[in-house]
Amino acid sequence: MGQHDATGPQCLGGEQRILAAEAGLHEGRVITLFGWAYRVRRMGALTFVLLRDRSGIIQVVFDRSAGAGCDAVDEVGVEDAITVTGAVRAEARAQGGFELVGAGLRVISRAATLPFEINLPQLKVGQDLALDHRVLSLRHPRSQAVFRIKAAIIQAFRDFSVRHGFIEVQTPKIVATATEGGANLFPVDYLGRRAYLAQSPQFYKQMLVLSGFERVFEVGPVYRAEPHNTSRHINEFTSLDWEVGWISGATEVMDLEEAMLRELVAKLRAEHAADLAVLGVDLETRMPALGGRIPRMALSDAQQLLAQRHGKQLPPGDLDPEGERLLCEALGGAVFVTDYPVETRPAYAYPHPDRPALTDSFDLLMGGIEVTTGGRRLSERAALEASLVARGLDPQAFAYYVESFGYGSPPHGGLAIGAERLTVALLGLGNLREATFFPRDIDRLTP
Amino acid sequence: MGQHDATGPQCLGGEQRILAAEAGLHEGRVITLFGWAYRVRRMGALTFVLLRDRSGIIQVVFDRSAGAGCDAVDEVGVEDAITVTGAVRAEARAQGGFELVGAGLRVISRAATLPFEINLPQLKVGQDLALDHRVLSLRHPRSQAVFRIKAAIIQAFRDFSVRHGFIEVQTPKIVATATEGGANLFPVDYLGRRAYLAQSPQFYKQMLVLSGFERVFEVGPVYRAEPHNTSRHINEFTSLDWEVGWISGATEVMDLEEAMLRELVAKLRAEHAADLAVLGVDLETRMPALGGRIPRMALSDAQQLLAQRHGKQLPPGDLDPEGERLLCEALGGAVFVTDYPVETRPAYAYPHPDRPALTDSFDLLMGGIEVTTGGRRLSERAALEASLVARGLDPQAFAYYVESFGYGSPPHGGLAIGAERLTVALLGLGNLREATFFPRDIDRLTP
Repeated sequence: MGQHDATGPQCLGGEQRILAAEAGLHEGRVITLFGWAYRVRRMGALTFVLLRDRSGIIQVVFDRSAGAGCDAVDEVGVEDAITVTGAVRAEARAQGGFELVGAGLRVISRAATLPFEINLPQLKVGQDLALDHRVLSLRHPRSQAVFRIKAAIIQAFRDFSVRHGFIEVQTPKIVATATEGGANLFPVDYLGRRAYLAQSPQFYKQMLVLSGFERVFEVGPVYRAEPHNTSRHINEFTSLDWEVGWISGATEVMDLEEAMLRELVAKLRAEHAADLAVLGVDLETRMPALGGRIPRMALSDAQQLLAQRHGKQLPPGDLDPEGERLLCEALGGAVFVTDYPVETRPAYAYPHPDRPALTDSFDLLMGGIEVTTGGRRLSERAALEASLVARGLDPQAFAYYVESFGYGSPPHGGLAIGAERLTVALLGLGNLREATFFPRDIDRLTP
Repeated sequence: MGQHDATGPQCLGGEQRILAAEAGLHEGRVITLFGWAYRVRRMGALTFVLLRDRSGIIQVVFDRSAGAGCDAVDEVGVEDAITVTGAVRAEARAQGGFELVGAGLRVISRAATLPFEINLPQLKVGQDLALDHRVLSLRHPRSQAVFRIKAAIIQAFRDFSVRHGFIEVQTPKIVATATEGGANLFPVDYLGRRAYLAQSPQFYKQMLVLSGFERVFEVGPVYRAEPHNTSRHINEFTSLDWEVGWISGATEVMDLEEAMLRELVAKLRAEHAADLAVLGVDLETRMPALGGRIPRMALSDAQQLLAQRHGKQLPPGDLDPEGERLLCEALGGAVFVTDYPVETRPAYAYPHPDRPALTDSFDLLMGGIEVTTGGRRLSERAALEASLVARGLDPQAFAYYVESFGYGSPPHGGLAIGAERLTVALLGLGNLREATFFPRDIDRLTP
């Protein structure tokens, strides 16, 4: 220690920073930009530097024959962190309609030789190398667009929730017992006691409805110790959870999600048009079902449709990935599948009002993958205990949960949306890892 | 399974629910409310039921002599989940200015005998019993107010962040290595490999600045396996994190936090006046420093102040809880303490520009407790490696982090705010557990 960075405070002191996307507001004036050298091209006396910052990319032209140029311009390399000073000039051929006539350039921090090129229209690199060097692969404009959209999706979920009377909650991720069954748990050594990472906030969000908050939402990590390695599985993901008191059935939860998604899509189209364009996504064409009412179809009807149209024979209670894809293609990109059999749902699922072998539950399939699971929950203590026992579970192991239903328990239901799955489904990405900053899977614990 | 709850969908079907707080908008009309029986008083032919829902409490009067009354009214007990129908009438003595002339009452779910009374102005129950029956203690209006304010604090942090160019990120909570030093880690069995729960998003949020997002924020859980049991420690808490690229020093981070807190306090006073009144908190009196510029004081000066005014002798580099309290009392409720010695801060701390034995860092003390820690970070790879080595750490153990600084690394800094600590400090609560839905500590893993 005791030694300073090469980049002392003085390098930024006193300079009013302008973002690349805002350069056009300063036409004719000399401004200073901070960012990274995305591309550097040298042609005789001219050096073209594409500077990338969080707002976008702008071209800076240094003309040595006009006296603009210095050692730093001659030496700047791709992905160096730089500051650039120059006059803003309109340039019809430039991306944002403006470029900078470079007057000065300072290299703040030099980049080593890159393990792969990041200034191509698409990253041409294997997934593992891209994830190993995440700081580089995330710099690609497509990746930046994906994560800006993911952030907007999560914020739209929250905005809608707050406007509909939900309160944000935080539930513990270190838990004493499983919520979704005993498998796929990560054990934690909790000060000498055995604990687990939460598979979902299920028990706690229900308890918070019962605590009088009535409508609760949470955005937080959940954990599944699934030992597969597929494009659809990661072991730590972001769950968008609702639990809603005083509902009469799963229909009301689907109505809420449908309204939320309609707003979400409108917001993305209005506020993230540029990011969608970078990704080549037209949400209206891709997901017409989200513009209005999303089709709702009992699981048995969905299986019948797949059998009739595609000759697909599926075991009762199940859809396979191909079935999910075909169903979405047939129904405008998204469909609520309802009425799952009791044996395919957790112990807390509420029975179907008319057919006790089924549950009052749903999944939302979108773009060929399951993005949501939800339904009404058992809210009467005796029924919940009976359901646990019927599955060979001991209600005493969940005493803190079961007892909560003994003090005035309104009917309720809710859902969980996988934020990464929703992002991937909306944008048509091929892998959940493309929508995860630092994915955790069977092979990957770093970065 | 196969058996239905006593509360079938029919109990809520077709009834337009009105919230207690909105009853006044329906004066003279018959409305239906859903909620819990907060208090029940019987006086001759009259039964008074205080119905509590998420919006507040309203009195419902059933007059058997006027023909209003039924078995349900005679039998309703405290904390039963109920629906009530009646006509809205102005009543000057009532809390919200209105009461309901009860016409019908239905018990949706009966409450067992309560382990403690919850309809008193203050809960009179030990902390352990209150936490054991969290679904009940959270129903108390004071608790509801605390968590509504906590949610508002977190949302104000996010709103400010987004308007200041930050993007929301999610970093992994399962990590391969310690970030804040090797102690106080919860081990996780990660599919047969040893991993840990993240003590902070520190490394990852820095890497996301370096990934070109420049300004990132996160709201998420962090973990400290501290074996103490005090009012100021819980083992899982909510961290509000910022990391900011292209800054010239910790001063800029403090400026941002100060502006955020000013907005936050204004928002709470404007939008949560009723909740603050329930808690008897006047933020202006309690925290005058938050209205303008928060005092900033070097740690050595703070120690000198404590020595001169209170005869307190503290070892260099340290403040004790009493010192933190006295300092806040002396300085309007809140103070930035700056310039911590190198040996008291983590390896990634940036040295003070003039005094290399100190760091360019700060803590924010508020209401007597530390709510924030922040500062500028080392952003040059060689300096970071040297700092790790100087502390006896092997840079190879943090290779994924250290290597990130090799590809163009702008100067940056940030902070972490404990959401529960901030809530407790603002509201003058005595214990972090009062601002935590389901606390985790050395003795508590459930509920």
